[in-house]
Amino acid sequence: MARAWHLMNRPQGVPIDTDFALKDIALPDLADGMVRVRNQWLSVDPYMRSRMNDVKSYVPSFQLGEPMTGGAIGEVVESRDPTLRAGDTVLHMAGWRDEVVEPAANFHKLPDIPGIAPQTFLGNLGLTGGTAYFGLLDVAAANAGDIVFVSAAAGAVGSAVVQIAKAKDMTVIGSAGGGAKCDFVRSLGADEVIDYKAGPVVKSLMAAAPKGIDVYFDNVGGDHLDAALATARQNARFAICGMIEGYNSSEPIRLRYIMRVIAARIRLQGFIYTDYMGRLGEFYADMGAMIARGQVTGRETIVDGLEAMPEAFRGLFSGANTGKMLVRL
Amino acid sequence: MARAWHLMNRPQGVPIDTDFALKDIALPDLADGMVRVRNQWLSVDPYMRSRMNDVKSYVPSFQLGEPMTGGAIGEVVESRDPTLRAGDTVLHMAGWRDEVVEPAANFHKLPDIPGIAPQTFLGNLGLTGGTAYFGLLDVAAANAGDIVFVSAAAGAVGSAVVQIAKAKDMTVIGSAGGGAKCDFVRSLGADEVIDYKAGPVVKSLMAAAPKGIDVYFDNVGGDHLDAALATARQNARFAICGMIEGYNSSEPIRLRYIMRVIAARIRLQGFIYTDYMGRLGEFYADMGAMIARGQVTGRETIVDGLEAMPEAFRGLFSGANTGKMLVRL
Repeated sequence: MARAWHLMNRPQGVPIDTDFALKDIALPDLADGMVRVRNQWLSVDPYMRSRMNDVKSYVPSFQLGEPMTGGAIGEVVESRDPTLRAGDTVLHMAGWRDEVVEPAANFHKLPDIPGIAPQTFLGNLGLTGGTAYFGLLDVAAANAGDIVFVSAAAGAVGSAVVQIAKAKDMTVIGSAGGGAKCDFVRSLGADEVIDYKAGPVVKSLMAAAPKGIDVYFDNVGGDHLDAALATARQNARFAICGMIEGYNSSEPIRLRYIMRVIAARIRLQGFIYTDYMGRLGEFYADMGAMIARGQVTGRETIVDGLEAMPEAFRGLFSGANTGKMLVRL
Repeated sequence: MARAWHLMNRPQGVPIDTDFALKDIALPDLADGMVRVRNQWLSVDPYMRSRMNDVKSYVPSFQLGEPMTGGAIGEVVESRDPTLRAGDTVLHMAGWRDEVVEPAANFHKLPDIPGIAPQTFLGNLGLTGGTAYFGLLDVAAANAGDIVFVSAAAGAVGSAVVQIAKAKDMTVIGSAGGGAKCDFVRSLGADEVIDYKAGPVVKSLMAAAPKGIDVYFDNVGGDHLDAALATARQNARFAICGMIEGYNSSEPIRLRYIMRVIAARIRLQGFIYTDYMGRLGEFYADMGAMIARGQVTGRETIVDGLEAMPEAFRGLFSGANTGKMLVRL
């Protein structure tokens, strides 16, 4: 019997165990055009938190009592469609479960590229890397020579931003929590690293970037965003990718330096990876080359077993992951 | 003897009487190339508040114990330069005083246009109108059909924004404080008016703009900015012109809806009028035509006498003005 994680309650703050339940699901018969896939890798991503709320957002809310979804990679075990055959590795959106039967069109067959592990398509060649790539280079219009500040630089998106920025000859300041993560960010090539647990971010950033910053890639919001406002140089560009500090909170964000937007002519721009679906070819070519050259590497934090899925998800908010957080089945 | 207002203390919060002193000033001799001007109109503008602080900003700080400066219009009473003659009306930056002797290059002779009062060059054809014009049409890239929200819509810049937006076939929602000012904003052509003193701005804006807003022209910050974030439609553009709510406060601004920047792909962009000095020709032509057609009119709040200058300035922060605040000598 296949099993899937269901949303049982709308979480208040950080989700708790009873917000989710792992339950049997009945899969449909394998009619013509349908494919059965056994999942191997499940993605947990911060954006899923907003899908647990009952508010209009850029992705539809999860429904109460229903299975959740998300990025996943699996192996075709049975196919009644000519485009896919047993043994194919596929990328799809029916995550949070171990097995899925859906029309073949919902699955994207992954190429077999030497040296590229399949789960890379959930990471640096997927939503994670694409968010970093387009956010940095298109939304923030970062160029060689720019001074770039990246928050949550030890996270999946953040660590990709650090490496892309270095590959493109920028100066990079990353923030992370604790010595081990700061060491990891430094190992990625960051010029300066801020430990946000060691003191106020604004003071640390002023010390790390005495000339100020041209670009801020925001994964955190709150105190990091305020520090970036405080240190922004003229015509600075902020790509607002995430504000993980606020995802589980209903408290307003307090900004002491927002008025610098005017004096420094700062541009803040929010964006979503899916806005760039039409430009994936460019991304695969450029990012693929950076990966092939070893300029962009992916660290993974792997949790085993479908049962561990909620714990892995919650770990995103407590900083349990370095790099991309994945669940392996 | 000429007199000028001097900055005696760096104000804490809203300036008080003892922060300023009106003192005699010695004017230089009228050497070759110099001009003596008797001021007729002095401008008070919110941006002057930041010049009273000792912080790096887009305009230099006023120096303690020294005369302050600002936009002014006066009449040439004596000239030793061939480009100006007695009786000419000139625009210049030596405000906060009654008389000035400076090189002729510091004065801009105003054209004598029938129906355009000289002080219009401190208002709708000056910093005020130019800020409204470029902020709305260039920074926020507002187009016909857009739903535009303008805060402080009874103020000098705000009332110009309302009228330009209506002249360009936009839907306009303005905010103002109190019934009289709201009536004034309505008289300018605004489709909806919010009285920010009557209740939370976010609720009023949601009611006034049930479809949301495409553009926000920010003169206020704080609760108005938060309301705009709450109601922004996809790809909304915010021109951040001023945040008068924060000018006299050291408290951080609290934003409950900042995370909507991501989902709605909102762009916030700060700007300064002087960035557009290279495009004044376009402004004079288009804005001049709107004024000539009666689409843009200027309401003035006039205070008489050099002695009243600090009071007029403080009035900007208590909402004492409707339209452009001017001091007449």
